[in-house]
Amino acid sequence: MRLRLDLAYDGTDFHGWASQPGLRTVERELAAAVTTVLRLDEPARLTVAGRTDAGVHAAGQVVHVDLEPEELERAVGHSDRHPEEALGTRLRGVLPPDVVVHRVTRAPEGFDARFSALSRRYRYLVCDDPTRLDPLRRREVVALRSPLDVDAMNAATARLLGLRNFAAFCKKREGASTTRTLLRYDWERRDDGLLEATVRADAFCHSMVRALIGALVPVGEGRRGVDFPVEVLTGLSRDPRVKVMPAHGLCLVEVEYPEDDALAARAVEARARRED
Amino acid sequence: MRLRLDLAYDGTDFHGWASQPGLRTVERELAAAVTTVLRLDEPARLTVAGRTDAGVHAAGQVVHVDLEPEELERAVGHSDRHPEEALGTRLRGVLPPDVVVHRVTRAPEGFDARFSALSRRYRYLVCDDPTRLDPLRRREVVALRSPLDVDAMNAATARLLGLRNFAAFCKKREGASTTRTLLRYDWERRDDGLLEATVRADAFCHSMVRALIGALVPVGEGRRGVDFPVEVLTGLSRDPRVKVMPAHGLCLVEVEYPEDDALAARAVEARARRED
Repeated sequence: MRLRLDLAYDGTDFHGWASQPGLRTVERELAAAVTTVLRLDEPARLTVAGRTDAGVHAAGQVVHVDLEPEELERAVGHSDRHPEEALGTRLRGVLPPDVVVHRVTRAPEGFDARFSALSRRYRYLVCDDPTRLDPLRRREVVALRSPLDVDAMNAATARLLGLRNFAAFCKKREGASTTRTLLRYDWERRDDGLLEATVRADAFCHSMVRALIGALVPVGEGRRGVDFPVEVLTGLSRDPRVKVMPAHGLCLVEVEYPEDDALAARAVEARARRED
Repeated sequence: MRLRLDLAYDGTDFHGWASQPGLRTVERELAAAVTTVLRLDEPARLTVAGRTDAGVHAAGQVVHVDLEPEELERAVGHSDRHPEEALGTRLRGVLPPDVVVHRVTRAPEGFDARFSALSRRYRYLVCDDPTRLDPLRRREVVALRSPLDVDAMNAATARLLGLRNFAAFCKKREGASTTRTLLRYDWERRDDGLLEATVRADAFCHSMVRALIGALVPVGEGRRGVDFPVEVLTGLSRDPRVKVMPAHGLCLVEVEYPEDDALAARAVEARARRED
């Protein structure tokens, strides 16, 4: 049986999602919690929708794990509640306070947390007015000194949308495609004065969102024109004029999946393209 | 000349507002920053509107400090900007990231940060649904395990309003009055699922807000009736059935002052009652 876990974490004190020897990562904490609660003989193997970098947060991360039905039943016993719900409560009880499992459900047939995903949505938070900085938000909001022009930024982002080669915004990896479909990228001035960017794509390369943010900030500051991001894009290689923005402003908000009957087909298609 | 400072802080790593030997407090950090930036010979003396306890946050704290006009001019020099504004920028530059000065202004005649205040408004944040806990909010939201009934709580709070002796909700201090005017106390279910309590009074005794929250939580849980808080109030002494709630859910949101021409009169009146 396959379980789907929906979770959130504060990425501040993690070296990202993926396990690395000797480092505290979300994958490692969660795998340890699952292994402990289910009293597994072998460490649990997790598959994740979005492998977030060091310092990046998640509000809607999705993971799957495969179990033998007896393993779940043995651990949570017989109760009035669904065993998946009982597992969620147990996991919250053993996880550190910077990781919270919101929901554990039985995954539908064909579901794969990574390959069934249609898109990943991220938000990036910026405060461009030092007189409104909120110290309680400093772990998730990037502070800038000069005010950004939201209209100019939105005029520029519109021209990046669609199926394109985002090599200029990606950290190069041998043999990996940098072609992605950017489905949404807009900036909004919130009631609390913060600027919130929403970026959604079928998938992202390493550091792509933070480079996309970095290409727009100088447009908002008036240091670059609205053509700048497209100019960078068509350059097809990393541009030293684009600063990859700090990780702590970034949060994985949502992973979108198709209807249940399309899950398996989507996974086959995505796997063929080796996206992540 | 008297300056008014509006500031916010994350109380997590502070032993409250008031200076205490050997402990990190907001007063100490802010006084050190003012003394450094203005190159004062003697440490700056600050007067605060709300002396928050250890772990309590502030979004709208107000402080005043008295200076010689030359001290301000000497420090910020002659620039196009108001010297008060320049001082704000300098203070933000030297303060640690958990304290932010939002605004420095010249205080109007008769202004006293503590004694001119008409009221203090606090908020208290609770998450009563473990499946919606946000790890990025864990330093300002108190997690409870069972759902609270907002309507029951609001029915109970209404009966606490007005001028009353709040001795049952106050930590006793020799010779200090425990009579306060509770102007507002209500609970609201926010869109993000959190419960937010708003508590406003002319002034508060030590730990009074957190005891007022603690008296209402068991009503929301259904463990006590709506008469319980009034029953505690009329008991006039600390009630072991009321748990003082954790500090980290609490935040001083706003200090209200009268119009400028009433500032001095209000200060005289408040000073006579020795409120704080």
